[in-house]
Amino acid sequence: MKELVYARMLLPQIERTPDKVGFVDGDRRFTYAEHLDRVQRLTGALRGLGIGPQDRFAVFSLNSQAYMELWHAAFLGAGVINPLNLRLAAKELTYILQDSGTKVVFTDFLFGGLIDQIRDEAGIEHVILIGPGDIRHEAEYEDLLAAATPVMPDEPEETDPAVLMYTGGTTGLPKGVLLEHRAEMLNLYHVAMRWGLDEHMVNLNQVPMFHAAAMGGVLGVPAVGGLSTYVPLFDPAKVLDAVATHHVNFTVMVPTMIGLTLNHPDFAPEKLASLETLTYGASPMPTALLTRLLDLYPDLKVYQGYGMTEASAILTVLGPEEHRKGGDLLKSAGRAAPGVMLSIQDPDGNILPKGTIGEVCARAGNFMREYWNKPEATAEAFRGGWYHSGDAGYLDDEGYLFLVDRVKDMIVTGGENVYSVEVENAIATHPAVAQVAVIGIPHEVWGEAVHAIVVLHDGAEATEDDIIEHARLAIAGYKLPKSVEFRAEPLPLSGAMKVLKKDLRAPYWEEHGRGIG
Amino acid sequence: MKELVYARMLLPQIERTPDKVGFVDGDRRFTYAEHLDRVQRLTGALRGLGIGPQDRFAVFSLNSQAYMELWHAAFLGAGVINPLNLRLAAKELTYILQDSGTKVVFTDFLFGGLIDQIRDEAGIEHVILIGPGDIRHEAEYEDLLAAATPVMPDEPEETDPAVLMYTGGTTGLPKGVLLEHRAEMLNLYHVAMRWGLDEHMVNLNQVPMFHAAAMGGVLGVPAVGGLSTYVPLFDPAKVLDAVATHHVNFTVMVPTMIGLTLNHPDFAPEKLASLETLTYGASPMPTALLTRLLDLYPDLKVYQGYGMTEASAILTVLGPEEHRKGGDLLKSAGRAAPGVMLSIQDPDGNILPKGTIGEVCARAGNFMREYWNKPEATAEAFRGGWYHSGDAGYLDDEGYLFLVDRVKDMIVTGGENVYSVEVENAIATHPAVAQVAVIGIPHEVWGEAVHAIVVLHDGAEATEDDIIEHARLAIAGYKLPKSVEFRAEPLPLSGAMKVLKKDLRAPYWEEHGRGIG
Repeated sequence: MKELVYARMLLPQIERTPDKVGFVDGDRRFTYAEHLDRVQRLTGALRGLGIGPQDRFAVFSLNSQAYMELWHAAFLGAGVINPLNLRLAAKELTYILQDSGTKVVFTDFLFGGLIDQIRDEAGIEHVILIGPGDIRHEAEYEDLLAAATPVMPDEPEETDPAVLMYTGGTTGLPKGVLLEHRAEMLNLYHVAMRWGLDEHMVNLNQVPMFHAAAMGGVLGVPAVGGLSTYVPLFDPAKVLDAVATHHVNFTVMVPTMIGLTLNHPDFAPEKLASLETLTYGASPMPTALLTRLLDLYPDLKVYQGYGMTEASAILTVLGPEEHRKGGDLLKSAGRAAPGVMLSIQDPDGNILPKGTIGEVCARAGNFMREYWNKPEATAEAFRGGWYHSGDAGYLDDEGYLFLVDRVKDMIVTGGENVYSVEVENAIATHPAVAQVAVIGIPHEVWGEAVHAIVVLHDGAEATEDDIIEHARLAIAGYKLPKSVEFRAEPLPLSGAMKVLKKDLRAPYWEEHGRGIG
Repeated sequence: MKELVYARMLLPQIERTPDKVGFVDGDRRFTYAEHLDRVQRLTGALRGLGIGPQDRFAVFSLNSQAYMELWHAAFLGAGVINPLNLRLAAKELTYILQDSGTKVVFTDFLFGGLIDQIRDEAGIEHVILIGPGDIRHEAEYEDLLAAATPVMPDEPEETDPAVLMYTGGTTGLPKGVLLEHRAEMLNLYHVAMRWGLDEHMVNLNQVPMFHAAAMGGVLGVPAVGGLSTYVPLFDPAKVLDAVATHHVNFTVMVPTMIGLTLNHPDFAPEKLASLETLTYGASPMPTALLTRLLDLYPDLKVYQGYGMTEASAILTVLGPEEHRKGGDLLKSAGRAAPGVMLSIQDPDGNILPKGTIGEVCARAGNFMREYWNKPEATAEAFRGGWYHSGDAGYLDDEGYLFLVDRVKDMIVTGGENVYSVEVENAIATHPAVAQVAVIGIPHEVWGEAVHAIVVLHDGAEATEDDIIEHARLAIAGYKLPKSVEFRAEPLPLSGAMKVLKKDLRAPYWEEHGRGIG
């Protein structure tokens, strides 16, 4: 069937308002008709480069109108987009391009250097340069479009692949998540049922456009005739400027971005006054920051979304009214979006009662078809007919999801489960502590022992006993660290600003079987 | 696939808030858990009556919690619901029950008499009586539920049938519209993308629950944890009471209902002050009434939906901001809902340019599978891959749809097309005119002649010439009525409160070939 495809939403919209400016990128403005012409030229160019509807093309680039065109080309059926995380290193990039069989890469002056460095090893045949730059390239994006014949892609089947998006790779090699048109459309529908979408929306694409969290804006806003604007690379000053300039009323941010923006010297509350809807997600939101945001903007509709690339983004939503209720709800990831079923399961696949911590599992139409070329990993992720998120959490009596940890970060000591986040929270409130990570290390009697790695504030002092006694104020004895290790250098972070616990664990487990999972 | 099925929305919601009161019907209140138990008992009872997932059961009843349970049972996979229009006469009812092979009918004290009268001829095997009554019946609804074993239906495939809903039958015999789960879910998603839905919604089910226009409330509100309330049979005083009692903030009405409510002696503006969202549709909205509504409630979010049973209800939406813009937009049916493609076609299937009147056609995932047992009518309706609505209209430059007439109500006189609605509007503004209908009648020279049938206000007077001269102020000469007929009694109305033009036309065409189409 061809009903759950983006063409059914975007093309009628373009027909309705061909002359409306729908996209503003710096000084360049594009009407909907111009946008469609560019997407069709891009499709023609892709066909000229040998890309058919099922072939991959990669994007390793800043946010821009070109990136939007590449997304829309893929969603209209031009090919399968492979949007690359801008934090990837040469080795990971090479692996991804080889694993996915991607021969065509769109990149720009800022990221093209890395592509240039790996292009031979990765087997890249065509580098298309967006904007200026001096790396080796086969074509410049604007020249390619100017020379191309517009082609309207055949409408895809809704179960055809649209996106091959590699996950962060905090656990071993990145995996390619294959998402069908249908899944992306259903994700949009599920979320939009909570948001509501209409043509007065002005979206600022500031979350990196390679990220699943960008999809609501990339797909939803143009489909209802709204205006799309861009910040090329997140920068709080540019966000403040862009919101004021374009009267932005809708945007998606990760908590770190919100914090950096509100704490920026240029920030003044009125600069974000045009915002009507702000959605955040992708990492935990500090309660103090959230409270500050809600106090600053009493009429702002604040949404939290929790999900993962495998779900085309969204499983749960915490809505504006729930944010305004405050209290413990501010620590929740919200409730399942309409169309999503959640369960909390034990390691044997039993569904656990409300209030009990286990692995967050879900079923929904917005899930991936598979991990690319990894049938075993796919079967493992969907065992028992449920997607297994790897996140530990519980559902309260009203179905609110509270996340406590990654399952693989859970420590099993003397048969008891200890969630590292809980111990970290108990230690982090000690005034001398700047950073803390809690991991399990091998122990002959208990199997694993709770071990804390602490970075103190400059000039601050604390002993192992100080830390353990402070934690005792908040958590039960069996959860207390058996050992505390002090480090001078900051803890290693992933591209998503999460502490890389696998790196912390590795030296302790080299001679043991736990691995670095 | 089983993803686009109602179970995926309703069951997680019930699990989230089992103890929340979700349904209030008079003095009776039901939590979500109680609702599910009743729906499961109903499923068990249906199985006991020989109804399998693909078998039909009919409902011929007032709005009530029982009706809601019957809908939800069907949508969870208990069987195919055949909701019967309460205006149907014995002959039509008999035809529908026979045509659909329906053996089980749920009815009540007010409508059971008609069922009783036709049950033998129609082949009804089981009459289930909702509430009290003295007709012949095999079981009472509450007894049936009390005695039944709860059964959770197997989750249906999304392309399984969910609803067999017969269309009004203003043109010959009623046709059964077979709607799949998938179509109903997509209709809900398309509409909800404009509305936004959340748990604070309190819906008053006042539009008859046999009608496709009721589906947004019947499916959407329980799926997000809102509250459903009922008016058994539309009555303006009861609507005013119910809105105030339950703090209703969401409802769907047809224009006639809005007019009767605002003109009722009990009406006072504060009685509807809790309404946040009002959706209307199903027949043309008088501009004066709409303007009055908008002026009375400046903050009310007013939506118009245009569609038909064949589309599970909705093709186009006119949103709150468009209503507030006013002007000509108030005469529009709005723009295509996200996911719906519209076109205006000539009789040969050519797509007409913007501004040109032709037949309104559409493609969308919310369309029926087929007309039940009518492959030729199905093929005719979907000829060229587009559903043909039978409505005449045009799209303006911005994609707003303006309806002008039913295609079959168009009059062809001397080779010119005259839209009856346009002539009616020109006559209706004459101060003496209470009601007017314009039809084509046979004419030896012109083929058809424009003929107006007029009912004057009590005590008012006007001649044929007065009417024609008044109309001349607004429309071209060839559109003017050639004859005006005055009647004392009100014009005949259909169940949907539309003037039955086929009945008006019939006597003129008895000896001619136009038929009553």
